[in-house]
Amino acid sequence: MAMKIIPNVIVGRLPVYLRALRHMQAQGQQTTSSQELGDLVGVSAAQIRKDLSQFGEFGKQGAGYNIAFLTGKLREILKVDRVWDVAVVGMGDMGHAIARYQGFANRGFRVAMVFDNNPALIGQKVGEFVIRDTQKMVDTIREAGIKVAMLTVPASAAQEVANQLIEAGVKAILNYAPISLSVPQGVMLQYIDPSTGLQRMTYYLE
Amino acid sequence: MAMKIIPNVIVGRLPVYLRALRHMQAQGQQTTSSQELGDLVGVSAAQIRKDLSQFGEFGKQGAGYNIAFLTGKLREILKVDRVWDVAVVGMGDMGHAIARYQGFANRGFRVAMVFDNNPALIGQKVGEFVIRDTQKMVDTIREAGIKVAMLTVPASAAQEVANQLIEAGVKAILNYAPISLSVPQGVMLQYIDPSTGLQRMTYYLE
Repeated sequence: MAMKIIPNVIVGRLPVYLRALRHMQAQGQQTTSSQELGDLVGVSAAQIRKDLSQFGEFGKQGAGYNIAFLTGKLREILKVDRVWDVAVVGMGDMGHAIARYQGFANRGFRVAMVFDNNPALIGQKVGEFVIRDTQKMVDTIREAGIKVAMLTVPASAAQEVANQLIEAGVKAILNYAPISLSVPQGVMLQYIDPSTGLQRMTYYLE
Repeated sequence: MAMKIIPNVIVGRLPVYLRALRHMQAQGQQTTSSQELGDLVGVSAAQIRKDLSQFGEFGKQGAGYNIAFLTGKLREILKVDRVWDVAVVGMGDMGHAIARYQGFANRGFRVAMVFDNNPALIGQKVGEFVIRDTQKMVDTIREAGIKVAMLTVPASAAQEVANQLIEAGVKAILNYAPISLSVPQGVMLQYIDPSTGLQRMTYYLE
């Protein structure tokens, strides 16, 4: 399978479908339709069917989708039917929040180690984690074989830390720093960018 | 213009184009092409041209786009050529991080007030803000005419607080709580969901 720097639009929608399916399942629902799922995520029913058909036959004409089955399939496709260890770099407010975040459970991820470069923080505990020294980060991450990292350092340090993560073998970076980063071919980058999320809504405001 | 609960896919891509244009501009670039912009954001050149053509003629055949001009147009379209006041509810780690976040400057938003329900926090300062009591939130937000809010409360409280925000007249909610929310027609909702961001990348991991 060809690796891409930024996932294509269809792959990018699957996690959103998965989140909506989890929501329906949590409310005790067992089946859904492309129409209902589409309404929930703001995509047309035809687009849902087209997207899912790229990966197989997951529903029955007229009977819709079994939520547990479709959830299982999407988790397989997205490779979150396993648990990925994640390194978090930057133990400011945002890093603390992530280290204690309860939202990763059953979604394919667990924070495995956290780093900072501040001597006053190194060795301190955040939740269950002892903050490690970024100076040893490249070796530590490489030895642990960690491929996924979250970057919560200040904007001014983000590119340098990203370069180190890539040197350590990290292939997927979720960037919280408010700055665009450059990564080489074969490394994936996604942004957590509240401004973008807000701008998607102001368009519709009076 | 019809209001939608979730912005359509084209509107949803504009903030990503805007972020990429800012990046190019910050590096001193003055013009770009649909090909270059597309490569940067992981969308085809044809899609970029098609998306932008929905809103007008922003480039010249063969000459590409003037970055400052296109940025200005996108800011107008997304209504972030002004500054929106934002209320932040929940002053845990994530709320603290947002209250001190440096990434909103020149992107159309400023945090205007912050709330928590914890008596030990109410009245304390976070950055330049005094934490206000959520019990007075509905009136305070309504009087200030705030339409945009960020929700950083625990999952268990998120729906109830969202309901209060809507009662206060908020029309756009950016939800950080790891739970799906229900909002009525006419209120917009976006998620900041690190699991979704990570799942967009694991698909491509070996």
